[in-house]
Order: sequence, then structure tokens, then C-alpha cells
Amino acid sequence: MTRQIKLGAFLPGGGQHVAAWRHPDQPADGATSFEFHKQLARTAERGLFDAYFLADGLAVAFGGGTEGGNAKVAGFEPVTLFSALAPLTTNLGFIATASTTYEEPYNTARKFASLDLLSGGRAGWNVVTTASDAAARNFNLTKQPPHATRYRRAQEHVEVVKKLWDSFEDDAFIRDKKSGVFYDTEKMHFADHVGAHFTVEGPLNVPRSPQGHPVIVQAGQSEDGRKLAAATAEVIFTAHQRLDTAREFYRDIKTRVTANGRNPDHVLIMPGISPFVGRTEEEAREKYERLTSYIPEEDGIALLNALTGGTLDLTEYNLDGPLPPAPETEGNKSRQALLRQIADENGFTIRQLYQWVASARGHYTIIGTAVQIADILQEWFENEAADGFNILPPWLPTSLDDFVALVIPELQRRGLFRTAYEGRTLRENLGLPIPINRYAADHPTIQAAE
Amino acid sequence: MTRQIKLGAFLPGGGQHVAAWRHPDQPADGATSFEFHKQLARTAERGLFDAYFLADGLAVAFGGGTEGGNAKVAGFEPVTLFSALAPLTTNLGFIATASTTYEEPYNTARKFASLDLLSGGRAGWNVVTTASDAAARNFNLTKQPPHATRYRRAQEHVEVVKKLWDSFEDDAFIRDKKSGVFYDTEKMHFADHVGAHFTVEGPLNVPRSPQGHPVIVQAGQSEDGRKLAAATAEVIFTAHQRLDTAREFYRDIKTRVTANGRNPDHVLIMPGISPFVGRTEEEAREKYERLTSYIPEEDGIALLNALTGGTLDLTEYNLDGPLPPAPETEGNKSRQALLRQIADENGFTIRQLYQWVASARGHYTIIGTAVQIADILQEWFENEAADGFNILPPWLPTSLDDFVALVIPELQRRGLFRTAYEGRTLRENLGLPIPINRYAADHPTIQAAE
Repeated sequence: MTRQIKLGAFLPGGGQHVAAWRHPDQPADGATSFEFHKQLARTAERGLFDAYFLADGLAVAFGGGTEGGNAKVAGFEPVTLFSALAPLTTNLGFIATASTTYEEPYNTARKFASLDLLSGGRAGWNVVTTASDAAARNFNLTKQPPHATRYRRAQEHVEVVKKLWDSFEDDAFIRDKKSGVFYDTEKMHFADHVGAHFTVEGPLNVPRSPQGHPVIVQAGQSEDGRKLAAATAEVIFTAHQRLDTAREFYRDIKTRVTANGRNPDHVLIMPGISPFVGRTEEEAREKYERLTSYIPEEDGIALLNALTGGTLDLTEYNLDGPLPPAPETEGNKSRQALLRQIADENGFTIRQLYQWVASARGHYTIIGTAVQIADILQEWFENEAADGFNILPPWLPTSLDDFVALVIPELQRRGLFRTAYEGRTLRENLGLPIPINRYAADHPTIQAAE
Repeated sequence: MTRQIKLGAFLPGGGQHVAAWRHPDQPADGATSFEFHKQLARTAERGLFDAYFLADGLAVAFGGGTEGGNAKVAGFEPVTLFSALAPLTTNLGFIATASTTYEEPYNTARKFASLDLLSGGRAGWNVVTTASDAAARNFNLTKQPPHATRYRRAQEHVEVVKKLWDSFEDDAFIRDKKSGVFYDTEKMHFADHVGAHFTVEGPLNVPRSPQGHPVIVQAGQSEDGRKLAAATAEVIFTAHQRLDTAREFYRDIKTRVTANGRNPDHVLIMPGISPFVGRTEEEAREKYERLTSYIPEEDGIALLNALTGGTLDLTEYNLDGPLPPAPETEGNKSRQALLRQIADENGFTIRQLYQWVASARGHYTIIGTAVQIADILQEWFENEAADGFNILPPWLPTSLDDFVALVIPELQRRGLFRTAYEGRTLRENLGLPIPINRYAADHPTIQAAE
């Protein structure tokens, strides 16, 4: 089968752009409206997206510049929201972000296994570490743990969760009413994990779904983040503005994956794209400028600070001047580096930088017609820069509707995107294999040991 | 309005009775089938139950006597499952059990607030402490914390969660697109909690639902459990075999509630009932004996041990003799006392005891016609022993179907049960008030302070 583009849809109900909620089309209460998320999920499924993707935070996000101007103060917890959307859809995957920093792996394993089971194998877990002092203060700490500690804990957290997901082999359940044997005790397994951060005996009290494990997703750009992604991720979200840096990242990750003894085809790299789609280029440009006009200066400054975990306070600087140099911090390193790169490459002032990132928070903003957008996606896809894309419509539902109505058909015409779902599970649609249970007789390392 | 009976439905997909899964009517895979849970939720809503209720455990429950005979080894995590069932129903409440022992209050607050929001105000939280060494071993410990410690942590956990649920006042969201003011910063509140077990700043990043807070449910019978219930619970599940002990409990709790300055009408006491309903008494009795015949001896013994948190190992005893005396333990005290009471009052042997508790795990098993069952419910309801009942159908879907088809209409004929839902939220149906936000100007303590 020909290789095709995979697509995630990043659809926070309040819209992605910092001022999305002020757009006339956008329901102002979208972030907390279940009905609106239902509509978005159905549109994404109509557009044959692989998955609906949501970020998450363990504190009120982005304090805002303008008093009370922050529309992202409140929303749903992603796993509960996706659990509610799953029965209302049939093929769409659901990739929920959850922190490894402030959760216990037994609880993480359970909630994702449960979502995966009730959705018939459509769950994914976007593994993150939580870089925020505000979140730390919601979990008995005063400051976030150091970057390296968070990543070590993250790696072990994922390891424990994956062990727990294999607690029952797929044929463990016999359920013979006559003999009274419900399950084969030889096919239930204890994790017996003892590590630096966690001691977890298992087994997990949730069985595997039709896709085996929820899909593991990761988005770190830093050295620690890349290591974690290369070791564990099956889908990698990333942010690039240019083909050459995207290709560099793609090559680096695929090389690391191979070095880890993993198949590089089973790790999909998906840069984020924020599309302003117009029937003409002018129309697309007008859409961009209209949204930009809704950003108050204070919110623009606050946004840059929030994106870097509070390490880029530009309140005292001239907005029409350049970015000042930055100190080494424990904040979100990859985001700070990315912002500087965008500013450097485009010669942006502080104002231009916040206007640019306001729509996609560091992802690639493309302003153009369906043909122009499809050209870029095709170029990246065919030149080892991407296996797919995470689409971040700047405001909702309009820019999602535009993408589904205009860009999807253009990609389909080029044979670059499916015209029907390949299967019912997220793995089937992404073309990822079902992980063989680590304790099963057909597991390669078990066969090798015999 | 006349006082009416409130009804919860305890519907684990695998059935309540320890051998339920072996019954021909019961889908053997019910515990892990989302479709089956969907059917149960719809039947419960057709029966106008106030809420669907689920227990929970943080380890594989009940090791079982017969190797592999335990049908309760795996199932769904309740909050994800209920999130999925909520959009498929319109009035039914959802009361999920969640532990205060191995979760952080910020996470607990979020997931319940999220379920409450997406269901339009139909969530309840059954607050428990986790009494199990097996669970402790899934959370970095070797043994469960002492009983008193667990209860102190539980009380503080609930306190923090309730503070977090009030983070936003109901009129905090202005969402004025023109001015750019999304929320009133005066109406967002920090919990600023500093306690023995938790330090949590807040605010929570989820708003309140139409019912204000999820309903707080509690089920402890021990002294610590009663204190916690009297201080925080709005619904109390309890287990009684006899009218006099039920009345004693009812009076004790209502007195404690009043002493805490709370309105006793706003704390509903709901004993559990395991009904075997027949069109004749003989038919009901046959149903009971049929299910009982499916219990292997080893499972019966293991069940008694599991119910008491592993403190009642009867392997070495004559099953046709009496219960041996018990030591003081850190296990589940209320359960052990209850089992002894049942055995004493009925003169049960060990075998008869496990047969009896197998259907309802300590709750009141009633075997009879709809009229006989309604008589008992009415007697308890009218004699200060109960405000409602938690119905635990022994196997599924049949004993739920029986209850809905036979007992509900009998209660309705007597004017004891609703013929239509009173409202859309769980609080409206239970007749419980919406908690006034603790930070709001119309809160009584705030008015008093002015």
C-alpha cells in the first residue's frame, strides 16, 4: 500500500489562537461546552482524521496579560472528555495528554486502558512532563522538579504503565461457566516493578483493548525529550517552521529510533500546522489579520512568557524591538529555543513574534489556498520531514470546517490521504502494529530465550 | 411535596453475586463489555433510578479461592466509564467511587468536575479510603497506611477537593468579545490550602457544573467512617440486615449531622438491598438457590477473607461449623463486624455465611415477590431507617430487569417512587441543594462576616 499522510486534529473547544474566543464565529463558551466538543469530534471524523488530540495542564494555564482576558483558564480534563466523545464516534482516535510528573503510573495505566477498552482501541497517550511552578504548587511542592529529574521519572513512568498494560494476555479470559474457570492464571502477570521513582506490583485490573496498548505519543524537542521519544514514542508531535530543520529533526529521531533497535516506520513524525485556508490567498491573509487584531498587547507578552514556563518576561521591553538574550533555566527549554529561532529567522520584533505564535504557539502557520497548503504538506511528506501532520485550526469551528471542506479533498485528489478509514482502531488507521504482550509465548525476546 | 424513596443502582457489568458470571443469563464478559454497561445504564434510566453507582479498587480485587475462578479481576475505571455513559443518557446520575488514599486532590477534583460538567450536573463521588495491602503495593508501599491515617487523609482530601470545586463562581465567566474580558478575576479563587497531608494552591482549571458540586457520597460504618460521613457526605450507603440496627444507624448519623450544624434532610441514608424478585415467593427462592449453587467452596472462603481486607482466613476451619473469634486489625473493620453480626443473628455456619454474603457482600438480601420487597422498603422508609436504597441486583441484566418491571411499578402504585424525573441534575432528583460557592457574596458565612 502506498504511504499516506496521517492527520491529527488539535481541537481545544476554545480554539487554538490566543484570541480565538473573540472571533465572531467562535462560541465564546466553547472551552467548557460539551456540545461544541461533540460537534468538533464529528467534523474531525467526517474529515477522516486519525485522531482528535488535546493538550493538558495541571494548573490554570497562562495567567494572561489583560486582567481576565485569558480564555484558557478552564476546560475539561481530556481523558474524561474523550471517554464521553468515544461512544459518539466510531473510527476517530483520541490522544489525550497526561502528565508523568504528578500522577502515579497505576492510575495513568488504568485510565488510558479504560478509555482504550471502551472506545474499542482508539486511545493514545501523549506523554508529558509538567514544567510549571503553578502546577507544582497544586501538588504539595513550591517549585517544579528539575528538567532531568522530570524526564527520568517520565521514562520510568512509561515503562511501568506499559508493563501494567500487559497484565493480561489477550487469550487470558476463558470464562467457562461450566468449569468455573474465568481466566487462565498463567496468563495474568505481575509487573513487579522496582525502580528509582516507582515500586508497582500489579497486575492492572483492566484488560488490553483490541489495539493492545494505547498509542504512545511524545512531543519533546530537547535532548532529554528526544531520548524519551526515541525510546518509547510511536507518534511524535513536533514544531518546525522550515523544511530543513524539520528534515534534520526527522532524520535525527529516525536514527535514534533505529539505534534503539526499533523499526523507524513504526514511529510517525507529525509536525504541527496552523492553517489559515482561503479560497484565495487574499482571503486567507484577511483571516490571519482579522484574528491577529483581537490580541491585546499585554496578552501577547504574557503568551510568550507562558509558553516558556514563565522564563521570558518581556514586560519591560520595547515591543517593536528585538528579543533580549535569555538565561539558562529549568523551564520549558525546547519552547524557548524555538521562539528564538522563529524570531531570528524572520527578523521579528517582539510584537511580530507574539502575533505569529498566537495562532499556533510555535507551530508552523500557513496562510494560503488549499492548493498552496497541500503543496507544502506534500513537500514535507515526500522529503523526509513528516509522516503526517497535527492540524491546529486557529479558531473553531470555522478553520476546522475550512480544512475539511477544502484541504482534505485536495490531499485526497493527490492520493496523499485516505478516502475511508482503514480500520476501527487508532493503530489500524495509523498503520502501527499491535504490541505483542511482553509475557506472551510469541513475544520475540521470549522465543529467543527458549 | 411528599417525601419519596431515592434509588441507586449498583451495576458492575459482571454482576454483584460472586458467581453471577456463571448464570446462563449473565454475559460472561459483562465486566469488560462497554455495550453491556450501556444496556444497564439505559435500563436504570428507564427505571427512573437516581443514579448508577460503581465501586472501585486499586488492585486486582479478591484473589479468589478456585484458581482463575475470580470474575472480578478486571473491569473499567468508573470515571472513564461513566463519562462514556453520560452522553448516552439524559437524567441518570453517576456515582463513581474514587480513593482518597492513592490520588492527589487536584486530580480527583478535576476528573469529577469534568464528569460533572460534561454530564450537565449528574456526577457523584463516593469517597473511600483504600484498605488493601495489594493496592498499597501498586503505589510504592509495602503495607496499607493505618486506618486512622487513611481517614485523616480522606477528610483533608475531601476538604481540598471541595475548595477547588469553588475556584470559579457561577457568574465568573463574562466572555465579552468586545472588551476582551473573558472572566471576572474577582470571581476566580485560590484554594491556598496548607494541611497535614496536602498543600494545594489552586485554582482548579474546570468550572462548576449546573449542580455546583458533584454529590458527595460515603459508606463508612466504623467510628472514623461515621465521623467523615457526618461531616461531609450528602448520601450515605450503608449495610443493614435488620430494621432495628438500620434505625439505630439512621438516628446516629442524623444526630451527628445536626451536631455538625448541617441540615439532616440534606443527608440521605441509603441501605443496600440485594433483591431476588419472583412472581411468587417460590420463584424468588429458586432464583436464590440457583445462583448459590454456582459458588465453589474455595471461592466462598476467599470471599469472606477478601471482604475483610485479608483478615479472615478460614481455610483451616470446618465450613459447617461457626466463625472463629477475630483479632484487632488495620483491615476493613466495618465489614468484619458486619459479617460477625450476620452470622450471630442468623446462627450461620461459615458455609451459610458465605452463601448469604455472596449475593450482596453484607447487604440485605431480600427474597420475595414485588409486594413483599416493596413492603420491606416501605417499612424501612417510613420508620426512619432509610431515605432510599441502593439496589444491588445479584446478576445482570435479569435481576435489574426484574426490579424495574416488578418492584418499581409497585412502589409507584404506592406513591413511594417518582413516575418521572424531577430534574436534569443528580441534586434535583435527590432533592439536595446546590452548594453555594464558599467565596460567593451570598454565602451565609460571608454575609455573617460582613
